[in-house]
Order: sequence, then C-alpha cells, then structure tokens
Amino acid sequence: MQYEILDKINSPADLKLLSVAQLNKLASELRDYITQSVSQTGGHLASNLGVVELTIAMHYVFDFSADRLLWDVGHQCYAHKILTGRRELFKKLRQKDGVSGFPNPAESPYDQFVVGHAGSSIPTALGLALASQKLGTKEKIIAFVGDASIVNGLSFEALNNLGLVKRQLLVVLNDNSMAIDSTQGAIAQFLAKVRLSHTYEDLRRRTDRILEYLPVFGKKMEDALKNFKRTVRMAITPNRLFESLNIPYFGPVDGHDTASLIQLFKAVSHLETPAVLHVYTKKGRGFSPADDNPTRFHSTGPFEINGEEFKKDEQKKTFTECFSDCIVELAKENEKITAITAAMSDGTGLAAFREQFKDRYYDVGIAESAAVDIAAGQAKLGLKPFVCIYSTFLQRSFDQIFQEVALQNLPVVFCIDRAGLVGADGPTHHGLMDIGFLRMMPNMVLISPANGVELKGALKFAAESNCPVAIRYPKDYVDDSLCPEIFSRPFEMGKSIVLRQGRNKLALVAYGSMAIEALKAAQALTSDNIDITVINARFAKPIDEKIVSLLAGGLCIITIEDHAAAGGFGSAVLEAAANAGLDTAKITVLGAGDKFIQADKRAEQLKQCGMSAQKIVEAVRKIVNAG
Amino acid sequence: MQYEILDKINSPADLKLLSVAQLNKLASELRDYITQSVSQTGGHLASNLGVVELTIAMHYVFDFSADRLLWDVGHQCYAHKILTGRRELFKKLRQKDGVSGFPNPAESPYDQFVVGHAGSSIPTALGLALASQKLGTKEKIIAFVGDASIVNGLSFEALNNLGLVKRQLLVVLNDNSMAIDSTQGAIAQFLAKVRLSHTYEDLRRRTDRILEYLPVFGKKMEDALKNFKRTVRMAITPNRLFESLNIPYFGPVDGHDTASLIQLFKAVSHLETPAVLHVYTKKGRGFSPADDNPTRFHSTGPFEINGEEFKKDEQKKTFTECFSDCIVELAKENEKITAITAAMSDGTGLAAFREQFKDRYYDVGIAESAAVDIAAGQAKLGLKPFVCIYSTFLQRSFDQIFQEVALQNLPVVFCIDRAGLVGADGPTHHGLMDIGFLRMMPNMVLISPANGVELKGALKFAAESNCPVAIRYPKDYVDDSLCPEIFSRPFEMGKSIVLRQGRNKLALVAYGSMAIEALKAAQALTSDNIDITVINARFAKPIDEKIVSLLAGGLCIITIEDHAAAGGFGSAVLEAAANAGLDTAKITVLGAGDKFIQADKRAEQLKQCGMSAQKIVEAVRKIVNAG
Repeated sequence: MQYEILDKINSPADLKLLSVAQLNKLASELRDYITQSVSQTGGHLASNLGVVELTIAMHYVFDFSADRLLWDVGHQCYAHKILTGRRELFKKLRQKDGVSGFPNPAESPYDQFVVGHAGSSIPTALGLALASQKLGTKEKIIAFVGDASIVNGLSFEALNNLGLVKRQLLVVLNDNSMAIDSTQGAIAQFLAKVRLSHTYEDLRRRTDRILEYLPVFGKKMEDALKNFKRTVRMAITPNRLFESLNIPYFGPVDGHDTASLIQLFKAVSHLETPAVLHVYTKKGRGFSPADDNPTRFHSTGPFEINGEEFKKDEQKKTFTECFSDCIVELAKENEKITAITAAMSDGTGLAAFREQFKDRYYDVGIAESAAVDIAAGQAKLGLKPFVCIYSTFLQRSFDQIFQEVALQNLPVVFCIDRAGLVGADGPTHHGLMDIGFLRMMPNMVLISPANGVELKGALKFAAESNCPVAIRYPKDYVDDSLCPEIFSRPFEMGKSIVLRQGRNKLALVAYGSMAIEALKAAQALTSDNIDITVINARFAKPIDEKIVSLLAGGLCIITIEDHAAAGGFGSAVLEAAANAGLDTAKITVLGAGDKFIQADKRAEQLKQCGMSAQKIVEAVRKIVNAG
Repeated sequence: MQYEILDKINSPADLKLLSVAQLNKLASELRDYITQSVSQTGGHLASNLGVVELTIAMHYVFDFSADRLLWDVGHQCYAHKILTGRRELFKKLRQKDGVSGFPNPAESPYDQFVVGHAGSSIPTALGLALASQKLGTKEKIIAFVGDASIVNGLSFEALNNLGLVKRQLLVVLNDNSMAIDSTQGAIAQFLAKVRLSHTYEDLRRRTDRILEYLPVFGKKMEDALKNFKRTVRMAITPNRLFESLNIPYFGPVDGHDTASLIQLFKAVSHLETPAVLHVYTKKGRGFSPADDNPTRFHSTGPFEINGEEFKKDEQKKTFTECFSDCIVELAKENEKITAITAAMSDGTGLAAFREQFKDRYYDVGIAESAAVDIAAGQAKLGLKPFVCIYSTFLQRSFDQIFQEVALQNLPVVFCIDRAGLVGADGPTHHGLMDIGFLRMMPNMVLISPANGVELKGALKFAAESNCPVAIRYPKDYVDDSLCPEIFSRPFEMGKSIVLRQGRNKLALVAYGSMAIEALKAAQALTSDNIDITVINARFAKPIDEKIVSLLAGGLCIITIEDHAAAGGFGSAVLEAAANAGLDTAKITVLGAGDKFIQADKRAEQLKQCGMSAQKIVEAVRKIVNAG
C-alpha cells in the first residue's frame, strides 16, 4: 500500500509541517496502516485505533526527543511508534528483530520506559518531574493513562502525591470506557455517568472555554480555574474527583478532533503545575469489526482484514480453554466456589463462568492487590475463591498473598495463567518468577499441570484443599496425547508421578508443561540408545521426597521448568537434596537464565532458554557423554 | 495496680452492662493500664491511647464474637485485646507466650486476620461482605482504618470496588492527623484542612444531625443523606472525596465522646449499604509525653513512666543509625543523591538526612509501590535515589522493582532495613523474602553488610554503581569489633572476602550480619580443635565464583543467612554449584525454615532458626563428626 502523507513521515519533525487537513488525512492513513499491519502480525488493535488523533496532536505540539511521553500499560503506542521512525519495522510488530508491542527505549529515544503493566505512568512521571525540578531542566512531561489504569492503586498513590511537583506535569486521561456495564468500580461508573451526561456540543463548548481561560501567558492558574468553573456549568464533571486530590482538571474534551486537541495541548503545556486533561476517545474507532467488538479486538492474533479471525487449530485446546471448562464444572458441583479476576475475564478464561455464575463472579478492574484480599475475606467466611490473574500481574499481589492469605492459611486458589514464557508480549509479560516468590511462603502449595488432563486434576485437588494452592500454566496449547492413563491419576499432596522408567542412571524431572518436552526428549534419545526416566513433579512445594531419593539411588537429575532458574523449581530440588545430606548430588537445573527474554514466538523462546525437547536432548547427551 | 472497673471486664459482655459514666472511667483506666504495661514491655503507645473510646464504643454496640472487626495495620488493637479476655496476657505484650502486638485469631475469636501491613482492612472487609451476601449471614462488618492507611493503593482499590457490596459494611476512618506538615499527600492535606475548619461545637452539631437523619428503622438511605447534607452546611467536608467513589459518608465526629460514639455506631449499624464514618481522635491522648511527641511514641521499646527512655547502650550503634550517618555523608559528596521513604522517616534513619537535605528528601506516605516508581523516574533523569523501605513492606513494591527499575536497569539503590528476623513485631514484620524475590530479577545486585563498617562500604559501592543495587541489613546492633581491617576493604562487584582461613575442610559462608555469628562460631570451635574457614559473601547476586571453587577444592560449605532458606542466599550458592557441575550435597544451608516465626527477642528467633553462633557450632560439629 502507498500512503500519500504517512510515507513521508520519518520523524515527528515531518508531521509538524502539515496542515490540519493533512493531519486528518494522516490520521486516516495511520488507522489503515495499523489495521493492515496488525491483521498480519497480531497485536492490540482497538486501543491503538482510538488514540490516533491524540498521538498526532501530542507529537505536533511537543517535541518528544526532549519532552517525555510516558505511556501507561503501553500497548496503545502503535501510532507513536510509526510516527517516530519505526514505520517499516512496525510490519514486524512483536516479532524477533521487529518492534516490540510496548514502548522500548532500546528501539527509540522517543520511548522512555519498557512498560506493560498498568499504573506506572503517573508515578514515573512524578519521579521525572521531581528530578527535573531538582536539576532545573525544562522538558515537558506527559503521562498518558487510560480510564482502566487510573483506578489502579499505583496510579492513585501517585495522584495523591502529585503535590510534590511544583512544575509542569500533564496527565492525559484517555477515557474510552464503553458503557456502564463494561466498566468496574466506582470511578469507572462515575466517569461513565459523566460521559452519558454530555452531548457532542458540550464537548466543543468546553474546549472553547478552556482555551479562552487557560493562562497561556503567565495568567494565574487559580484565576483560570475559577473562571473556567464559572463558565462551564455541567450537571456532573469529574472535577470533584480530582479536586479532593488538589489536581487542576480540564475536560472532558473530544479526543478525535485533531485541531482542538492541538490548541488544548498548546494551552495546557504552559501550566506550571500538574494538571489533568480528560479526553474522550472511542476504542477501535474507524475499523468496523473493532468498533463493534472492542473487547474481542483488545489484543488479537493475526486476523483477516474483514475482521474474521484466522482459523484456529480446532484439534488443539489451550490451557486457558481447559481451565474455562474445568472451573465451570467444579462450580456446578460446589456452590462455594467463586471466581475473581482483575480486568482479565476473557484472558483468564472466565467468560463462561461469568455467564453461568454471575453472582459468584467478581471483576475488580486492574486491582490485583485488592483482588487477593477480597478472596482472603471470602475464604475466611467459608467460600472457596479462585483468583485468576496472569503470573506477571500477580507480582502486584505478592504482599497480599503473603500476609492476607498464606499467613492466615486461607484456602484461596490462585489460577496463574501466562506462567512462563509468553511469546510476543515479551519481557514485561513473562511469568518467570511466580514459583520463586510463592514458594518462600509457609502454608503455600504449588502445582503445575503438564497438560489439560492434569489441569483438571490439579483444579479438583485445589478445590478440595484446606490451604492456599497456586496452579501455574502457560500460554500454550495442551498436549493430552501422551500416556493419558498416567496423567489422569488423581493429585496427591506433594506426590510426583513417573511418566517413563528408563535404564540409564539419569532422570528428567519436569515441572508443568515441560513434562511433555521431557517425554519427547526421552523418546528422541532412544535412537541414541539412551533410556532415561521421566518424572512429572506436579508439585514445586512440597517437593516429593521420591525425587531426592533418586539421587540417593545414584541417578543424575535434570530439572526442567518454564521459570527463572534462580529460585525456581530446580532450586527447590537442590535445597531438598542439600537438606537430605546425600553423599553426592548431581543435579542440572534447566530454566530461564539471568536475562530478559525479548518478544518472539514462545517455541523460540523456550529453545533460547534451553527448555525445548531438542535442548533437553542436548543436555542429556552432554551428561551421558561426560559420565 | 488495682482498677475498679477494668479488673472486672473479662469479656465485652461485661462492658455492655456499664453506664456511660462507668465507660468513661473504664477509658481512663484502660489508658493507664496500657501506659503502665507498655512502659515495661515496649510497643505502640500513642496510636493505642488515641482509640480507647472508639474501641469501647464499638464493643458496646457490636458483638464481635459474631460481628467482624478488621483492624488496619493492627498496632492500635491494645484496648481491644485487653477488653476481649487478654488483660493479664497483655503484660507480656510482644513476648514469647504473651500476646502479639497485632491482631491474631490464634489468640482470640475476637481477632480476624493476623495483620501488620497497611491497607488490608477495607479489601478484606469487602471480601467478608461479599461472602456474607452470598451465604446470607447477618453479621456486621467493620473496617477500622487510619488516615495514613486509607491513602494506600490497596485501600483505594477496595474503596473503588465497594459498590460490589449490597449490605452493611462500615468503614471507620480514624483520623488522627496531627497537622498539615506532618502528613503526606493530597488527601492527608485535604483532611487536615477539613480538620482546621471545624470547631468542637461543629462536631457536636454534626453528630446530632447524623443521629436525627439516619434511617434507624428502614428510612431510605438516599433521603437520609439528602437531609443530612441539607442541614449540615460546612465550608469543607470530605464528602466529595467519597462522593465520587459513591460511598455514603458521615462525619467528621468527635472520637473521644463515648456517649455520642455509641449512639452513632447504633445508628450507622442499621445501614444496609457500605458507609464511611469519619472520626477525629488524638494520638497519644491522655499521656503527656506521648501527647507532646506522638512520633517518638509511635512504637517504642520499654520506657519509664515519666516518659524518659530506658538508657540505650551507648557503646552500641544500630544498623539504622549507621545508615543514617552514612547517607548524610554520601549526600554531602554527591548532590545527585535523593532519599525516598514511605512514611518511615525515623524508622529507616532518614531524620538527619531530612533535616540537612530537605529538597532531596521525599516522604510519599504509606505508598511503597509509588515510592519505587518515583525513584525510577528520578534515576531516569540522572539523579541517584536511595529508596528506604523495610524488607517486609518492600514486598508491596515487587512488581515496580521488576518492571520500572530492573527491566530498565536504572541505578536505584534500595536500602532494606529490618531485613531478617525483627523480634517483637513478629511474623507480619519479618523480612525473610527479599533475597528470594530480588535475585530473580536480571540486572539486580544484592548486597548485605556484616556490620557498620561494611554498611558504609556497601553504600559507597551502591552510590557509585550504574545498576540497581539492594542492600539489606537487620534490626540489630552492629558489631565492628572483629577484624576491622578486613571488613573495611572496599566492596568489589561480586567479590566475597575471607574473614578467617582454617585448616579443616569446612567453610562457613555467611551473608550479612551472620558473618559475625560465623566468626564467633569459628572462634568457639577452636577449643574443639576444629579450625574452619569463614567467608563473608557480601553479595547474594552475583555469587562469587570463589565460593563455588571451595567445593571444587573438596571443602564442605555451610551457608548462613538471616532469610528463608527457600530461595535465599544458600539457594543461590546451590544453583551456582550445580551450574558448575559440582556436587551440591556438600552444602548445608542454614536459614529460616518453612514456618512463620512468632514474636520473641530477635536473639531467640535466630537461635530458633538455627542461625546463632551456638547453633552454627552445633551444625559444624555434626558435619565434622559425620565426616
């Protein structure tokens, strides 16, 4: 495809030369370019289509080679990437050697932080502003945050401390909340109510007033706000929300009106205090399938341009889909079961549960910390809560899992999806630390199922347990084809299972889905006449004594896990072996090394970390040849 | 001492029989009892003296053998403990076999959760309320939270989700903010401003209005609120703060007027929705030294009843005191250095820094997550922030340290006080997981100094580093008496130091202050004619290869750390050994086991966990005798 304007934009400087009409055409070309490209690569579509005009206007007014633009979550930075010299690389979005799906300073000086979790833009902007205040630098600082992120506790802590800043700091609140019932929490409902109380004309009128009264050249902020409030009388404005936080607030204004946005950004850029500009946008704007179904197109694999998905392999089921089925079945049997998610209903596979058990389903928005405490409270009164949070986001709940759950020994079940390497989302999203941080907590039981059959068994075990249980599983398809009769054996506390008994003095001890890789490796090794044992550990805590007893029997062990080698499952085996005071203990730990793993296909990442069947084969050969 | 009324109160049932006059006398007796007792045992004084009337009134109105009272942080529960059958045990506050300083269900059915961290009361109450809603139970649920805790992100996430609850749930906001300049953040300042706008008469009048309009028997909530608002016209009320969160708000009212409080609690207990009752109290009320200096008496060791402290051993300096001196010195040399704390200025030893470098000091209130992000932002612009947070509270910042600091490789320094066993504060406050969770993060460097001399060296090293560095040290005195010339050697990245070279094939490898215990143990063992090597590891990440090479040289190793044995320093040594293809069975890991350690003297806790010099001696003997 050829684009009249976009093809000539190689840096934001090029964009500053355009007329408003040309900028509007650029917006339309950007939308097309993003849609075409994401249809090939997959990625976040709807959220990016919503912020095209905002991105253009910000780049028109500010100079982000010196000024600082901080994205929150960061998945809405596609237009920004394309406008800042990464147009061609964007065609390899979220692929090796392409651009990542999130801001990344290694890619461009226009990016500040590698981010992917919600709520960090305001507090890091606050830090930048304090540093700038101290160093006497003059760059403009902008935190760009969505209505879903601003309710996160981290955002709130920063808003509450914004008074530390005595210079410019603009928070752009990108409000794309779709309707009352698709948002969670009081603030979301409040914003939705505000939104419904406006006509399009109101937005225009308010923009005019803001422009009229903003202290463009040195007028006092307080006067401006007073004048602004006097002339803009609305039934409801989010003013009081920010007023109690003592933050000057402007808006809401139309986030798709490029010309007005440019004027507004120019006006607020002169403020010498922190301020909030509240902007309405429409997720998925300009692409009709995304318009119709923004949730579906929030993050997507490659899709066809007419909005139809690539056909998914019908033979294969993901761990998430298996979970979805199992939790519904368990909930039918046990009415004490509830499910709690933090804005990830679809991603964690709770959509079906939500449909069938509306009164036992809780979405608290992006509030992982509170989600765990709510579960603790429910468990205290005898319910059986299942907390469904991605591994990387569960890091937000570390302290709550420790104090409110483990210390009380409450029977909360943690369903940790996206544990291990996650593929295209890259380093912000890998779940490589959950075993490590959870296994330090007394009372905690850690499980990982090898496949769909085991996931069912693990969930059943957890549902019947009287202590906290965490079940981790990856973003991957399940493979239920191998030795199904063994995998279907019920889970027993701390008991591993033998998947394959070999003659050689070597055992693969695998945790979770790595058991399948281990089986494949063992199979492949038979052609070398190497016949090894394969153990499916099932538990990372407690560690089965039988695993240690293999060492006492003189075997070498290779542990395999889709987790950081530091502090993980293999580390737990090492500790158990050291604790048993064995004469000799030859253990090799396979896991992710001490570095961040960039975006790529998950299979490639596993290979890179030495955890694929092929890599296991190589590790075994090395040991066998050495011994 | 004899108390006319208190001596007869063996459960809240006894209290319900008293007249208001008697309750007021009880309040006075409780104050005296708490003050006398804490003067002997140490503990939190000021905060407990402030909530005596509130505690009495809540127990008078509610029945907490069935109703649920959730303390936030929990250190203000002394009157509650004394009134719920623990009067005599209270004399052994925070001691072994006494009562703990925090709520503890193992002590009493009147306690719900073991807590000690801020912000959990509202989200756990929310969980209880949802469970009760589901189960159809009728107990009243009360979250009792201070103005310092309510600004924590966790509290906010819960407030934002309070709309999930369709039944009674009372949040008592205990507002004891002392003055504007002693509080942090916009909400604290807002509450302080509200406070200054009231006279005592205003409080009384408001109480009357609330009682007049509250829907005691079935009147509609909305009507009541409307009437209430119409009749109580104040210049400023925190109403709008809670209004945007859609939470009915009542107050502020006087928290020392027992009779009114009883009426108010009775009235609000009938509400069938969540609500906030805002109460003013005075920290340290009734005890004049605490009245004059509430910060000093926030938490205290034993003191004399006239308010004079027990003389501290002048020969001894704590790690915190050493830190306090060092950070001031470093800041004099390097003006890029800033210090950030989360409401723990005194506790972390930043008081002197705050005095001398007011413009480089930031207290963000109880907001550990945001504190780390603010540091990340500062480091991004070239400042050198030192984040000072207790180990146990740094758990709140896990995800921010991972994403906003380690992933960006920003040179933030984490000064982790109260790392390891903390003595009387017990299981909520031990810092036993920081090595484990931090060492999984690429780019992170972990240090622990053995004593004051090394703390200075470690801080200097960190100040000059270009990556994130975490320095952990315990709540203990430093011992700088042993081999000072060795300890004073400069820190080099990943390098351990040999403190003692022995003849036996056994080395103690100690991390942090355990090096002193190890030296003492080695000294003691010479009388058995056992002569062992002692290594001071200094770094838990990276691990010095020299430690591993000891194994290759045929030595046995005993690692010693004041941390969970799971995932800690010893575990890192095991991994390094396994990685080098060495026999990991020659390593013994000494560290805290897989259980929660109850309140006791720190020295006793170290002994209990096998980490004292004496216990190390025993471990060595066992190995030497076996070998």
